[in-house]
Amino acid sequence: MTPDDVTPESVTGNRANEDGVGRLLPTPQQTSLADDRQILFFSTAENPPVPGIDHRDLPARPDDSATRVRRDPQIGDWVMIAPARQERTYKPPRRMCPLCPDPSGRSSEVPADDYDVVVFENRFPSLAAAHAGSGFRLPDRPGDLMVEAPGHGRCEVVCFSSDHEGSFSGLTPERARLVVDVWSQRTDDLLARDGVEEVFCFENRGEEIGVTLTHPHGQIYAYPFRTHRTETMLRAASTHRAQTGSDLFESILAGELSSGERILVQTAHTAAFVPFAARWPAEVHIYPLRHVRRLSELTDDEADDLARVYLMVLRAYDALYGRPLPYIASWHQYRADSAEGYLHAELFSVRRSADKLKYLAGSESGRDAFVTDKTPEDVAADLREVMA
Amino acid sequence: MTPDDVTPESVTGNRANEDGVGRLLPTPQQTSLADDRQILFFSTAENPPVPGIDHRDLPARPDDSATRVRRDPQIGDWVMIAPARQERTYKPPRRMCPLCPDPSGRSSEVPADDYDVVVFENRFPSLAAAHAGSGFRLPDRPGDLMVEAPGHGRCEVVCFSSDHEGSFSGLTPERARLVVDVWSQRTDDLLARDGVEEVFCFENRGEEIGVTLTHPHGQIYAYPFRTHRTETMLRAASTHRAQTGSDLFESILAGELSSGERILVQTAHTAAFVPFAARWPAEVHIYPLRHVRRLSELTDDEADDLARVYLMVLRAYDALYGRPLPYIASWHQYRADSAEGYLHAELFSVRRSADKLKYLAGSESGRDAFVTDKTPEDVAADLREVMA
Repeated sequence: MTPDDVTPESVTGNRANEDGVGRLLPTPQQTSLADDRQILFFSTAENPPVPGIDHRDLPARPDDSATRVRRDPQIGDWVMIAPARQERTYKPPRRMCPLCPDPSGRSSEVPADDYDVVVFENRFPSLAAAHAGSGFRLPDRPGDLMVEAPGHGRCEVVCFSSDHEGSFSGLTPERARLVVDVWSQRTDDLLARDGVEEVFCFENRGEEIGVTLTHPHGQIYAYPFRTHRTETMLRAASTHRAQTGSDLFESILAGELSSGERILVQTAHTAAFVPFAARWPAEVHIYPLRHVRRLSELTDDEADDLARVYLMVLRAYDALYGRPLPYIASWHQYRADSAEGYLHAELFSVRRSADKLKYLAGSESGRDAFVTDKTPEDVAADLREVMA
Repeated sequence: MTPDDVTPESVTGNRANEDGVGRLLPTPQQTSLADDRQILFFSTAENPPVPGIDHRDLPARPDDSATRVRRDPQIGDWVMIAPARQERTYKPPRRMCPLCPDPSGRSSEVPADDYDVVVFENRFPSLAAAHAGSGFRLPDRPGDLMVEAPGHGRCEVVCFSSDHEGSFSGLTPERARLVVDVWSQRTDDLLARDGVEEVFCFENRGEEIGVTLTHPHGQIYAYPFRTHRTETMLRAASTHRAQTGSDLFESILAGELSSGERILVQTAHTAAFVPFAARWPAEVHIYPLRHVRRLSELTDDEADDLARVYLMVLRAYDALYGRPLPYIASWHQYRADSAEGYLHAELFSVRRSADKLKYLAGSESGRDAFVTDKTPEDVAADLREVMA
């Protein structure tokens, strides 16, 4: 079986209410780039994509031998080593943007006239080659202090819009909902592949956090391990359940809703708040009110509502200092059979004031102990003020 | 008892071989700044300090009500909230440098003609007011999701030299050894104070990591909690002991020494290496060969040797790209009675090549999952090449 043989779910869309899936997910139109990487076109009904042919002369698609993962014996978590990423595209001029649609198939990653949302395998991946049936599993070897393995997994790029000058916050609610559906479809597809332990949908926005391509896009990492943050959160949840009998995330959400001090918005199906112990500037968490594990479990109404609240938060971000705020938007999703976990988004910035950035210095980078110079209540008040 | 009543050890120096102390530590000359903050002058024998009087008109010294700590219910660790830090000194012109000696006592934090090493309480602290006999302890309250407490602890500034244009790497071995002794003395003093769970000596160097004062200096945080990184490392050590019967840190050091691939230097008492699963650019760990918990346990010979190796690494850093490398140097020390732990330094940079910085984007900041674009073996080869 080759990496191109994806599971049927990934190309036909998931059926509603099957395996916890709460609505019909979109079916992408799938083709391959010149080096055999997959590219998936997603669209609203009225704008079907017309994929063209990629005529570029590209080196062979990277496989999982190009990158490595090593377990850090001091911490127990995994580090990805991806030397090829040194060569990745760095702030190209606009006419060379690899994310713009290119009908000629000669100058970008997307050989097409136009697209709504397009997903393709990263040309400079940190992880590669995950597919159903690979049988891959990371070695365990307890007590072994030097464990290394192929960088098995998958890194995808998600272009939110063909408009080079656009941004996620500028999408219509319908197009934002399409992105939510794309994340849902990709998450379920990737979680079904052998050796994938966690799927992480995220967006990095802004030069201040090192973004080298300004075209609106996000990324998806399918990790062959459970990340340190997820591991820590799930351990805290299981400790909380043992101590109190309650679900940690449900309790956090209920506590924020009942206190109200840090709530930004509560709708029929969704709540957004600055968390009690926010560590980042402008940190906001968004939860669906119904406890689900993954985006694909949301009903149509819930997914629409979540997309609308997500847009509200991103628009408040850009209104905060009167110009685009650099941010990281990070989704937390879990397998259907995970003992703990609650779908939510965590968004935050590195900008701590109109003219100052938050740097991660000694206490943060050396000890994971964060210092913030604004109370979460003040952050919530500032964001509420600029919220439409 | 007031915060000024420090334990006798803090002002008289520790005696060799008492309470695990391996050598005689220096006795600082102690006085107070205009707002009652402590300032401690340390010196080599030939250069005794002459502290002057601080004539500035300063607002009252911050106490532990000025800052707060909150437990993050998602993770279980603590976040510091320090609103007064928004006002902290930001890139002052050279003549206003608060770390330069100032005999007039009117324009800097150090009212003196000169000094070798000086330590004072940070004027804009993240944590304050820790002293012996306070009886302070952070609340525990298992299951409570909104735990907040005063920001009890202490933040100190350590000036490595009175030379504004200097750097740690430019110190003589004798002066570098004095700094090691100062860290030793401060660590033992601060660990003896009620409510202090962890003492963290570190240096942030370089505008690239947000340093706002260029005068060579480091900092010390005395935390009222165990930091997340320390907690995670100690848990890994205890798991490793249960699995193998061995000490994790001894095993890591032995593994690096026997492999040799990533060793930068090994001397009579000290080893420096790039760790097997380095996550940061130019990451280097420095271990004494004898297993001790804290800097104060080192003998004279060991402390001299450690200071020399530390200087070698810092000089290699500056030689790597032919100009000062931004770095974070972070010391790991533990109480004498800690079940696990091994004194060592962890140094790393945010510069990943001559012209590129490493940004912590989605995978790192959102999931604590690091991607590096250079193998640890290549990093070690590059550093060995520029090592004196």
